[in-house]
Amino acid sequence: MDALSKNKIKWIRSLRLKKNRDSEGLFVVEGAKMVQEILKDESATVECLVTTDESLDFAGTQFHTDTATMKAISGLSTPSSLLAVVKKPQISTKKSPWTLVLDGVQDPGNMGTIIRTADWFGITDIVCSQQTVDCFNPKVVQSTMGSIFRVCVRYERLEDYFENVDRPVFGALLEGENMHCVTVPKEGILLMGNEGNGISEELIDFISHPIHIPGKGGAESLNVAVATGILLGRFSH
Amino acid sequence: MDALSKNKIKWIRSLRLKKNRDSEGLFVVEGAKMVQEILKDESATVECLVTTDESLDFAGTQFHTDTATMKAISGLSTPSSLLAVVKKPQISTKKSPWTLVLDGVQDPGNMGTIIRTADWFGITDIVCSQQTVDCFNPKVVQSTMGSIFRVCVRYERLEDYFENVDRPVFGALLEGENMHCVTVPKEGILLMGNEGNGISEELIDFISHPIHIPGKGGAESLNVAVATGILLGRFSH
Repeated sequence: MDALSKNKIKWIRSLRLKKNRDSEGLFVVEGAKMVQEILKDESATVECLVTTDESLDFAGTQFHTDTATMKAISGLSTPSSLLAVVKKPQISTKKSPWTLVLDGVQDPGNMGTIIRTADWFGITDIVCSQQTVDCFNPKVVQSTMGSIFRVCVRYERLEDYFENVDRPVFGALLEGENMHCVTVPKEGILLMGNEGNGISEELIDFISHPIHIPGKGGAESLNVAVATGILLGRFSH
Repeated sequence: MDALSKNKIKWIRSLRLKKNRDSEGLFVVEGAKMVQEILKDESATVECLVTTDESLDFAGTQFHTDTATMKAISGLSTPSSLLAVVKKPQISTKKSPWTLVLDGVQDPGNMGTIIRTADWFGITDIVCSQQTVDCFNPKVVQSTMGSIFRVCVRYERLEDYFENVDRPVFGALLEGENMHCVTVPKEGILLMGNEGNGISEELIDFISHPIHIPGKGGAESLNVAVATGILLGRFSH
């Protein structure tokens, strides 16, 4: 097992930026559990591993380093003992009956949790506005708990996307219909908005079914990942 | 408006620790939006304010400081321009028909989001095991988005708590009944477990209604705040 050179450290750190992840077609996965899952996953291509512990049963390139260097290359506040540089999965054309559309979700933890929740409910298709946080951001990857390899996330201009859809579009709006009262079709689109501002003005007209989670307490709103989960839970009936 | 003395800086920083929050009966709230909401809330008692901007319309003690000092006293990675030291709310005896019980939730973000979600659904009563993260931890307070002042969170030995309950106990378990098939009573208890380990072995026998969120995708589990939201959404029907 080789030691990690200064150039390699620089290269891994460079993948914290979206433009470098895009140009290299690579991203970083951290944490022993997630990396070990990826090594078992035939659809994932691991470029190299970095570890502070002993070597792993891995045929490719492995680097050994110390905890201080791991801290320097990690994109997380609590670095783990194992990190992998992984090829971005191919955009699949496999569509699920339901598509989740995200309009400007900003928080990496929310984004990762939404991807994990979609995966739980069998939704493999997420379409995001270009203002939505990159799904290969280290904190997003971490929060997906491995679902990033099973869900296809793509970014496009949502006005263009909605021009071409023929399925019903459910949009989470405070003034929508009570979610318990709607008839849920077999196929559809769920549109969720930004944490602070909700769904953009320009997209409201594309919503065929405004939908609302009934609440009777004092909170002004729900966390967007929780709201997504509640609505997907309702649709899973 | 006074400048912030070294002693005051030390005092505010000391409130990052639970033992100091407990002995002083105080905790810290950060962020302009949340602090401004508290100032309007008659049930909240603000001990003092710290700001990097101009003074606010507040009759009590106010300190002015610079951004670097704010960073030093803040319990968050991105400090805001406004911070308040606030008296812990009194434990209310007002009970909601549903009680949420948390068995060892560890992540502050999850905890805060759960409190916010409970508030949305009108649940004012949360009972936590002693292993659950403190609800006055700065990151928890931040994630509640103000719901910490409307929901009563208490900590006790859950075995003792469950010995004395007479409402049905729904527990989130992977082998539980499909949530869409259960009959939801008017009153009850929802028990949620720890992020990694779920509900403790010792508490399983207290569950009268094991309940499960049906999923058909690849994710092994759901985030605990999302799962809590989905189940409370189901119960809100």
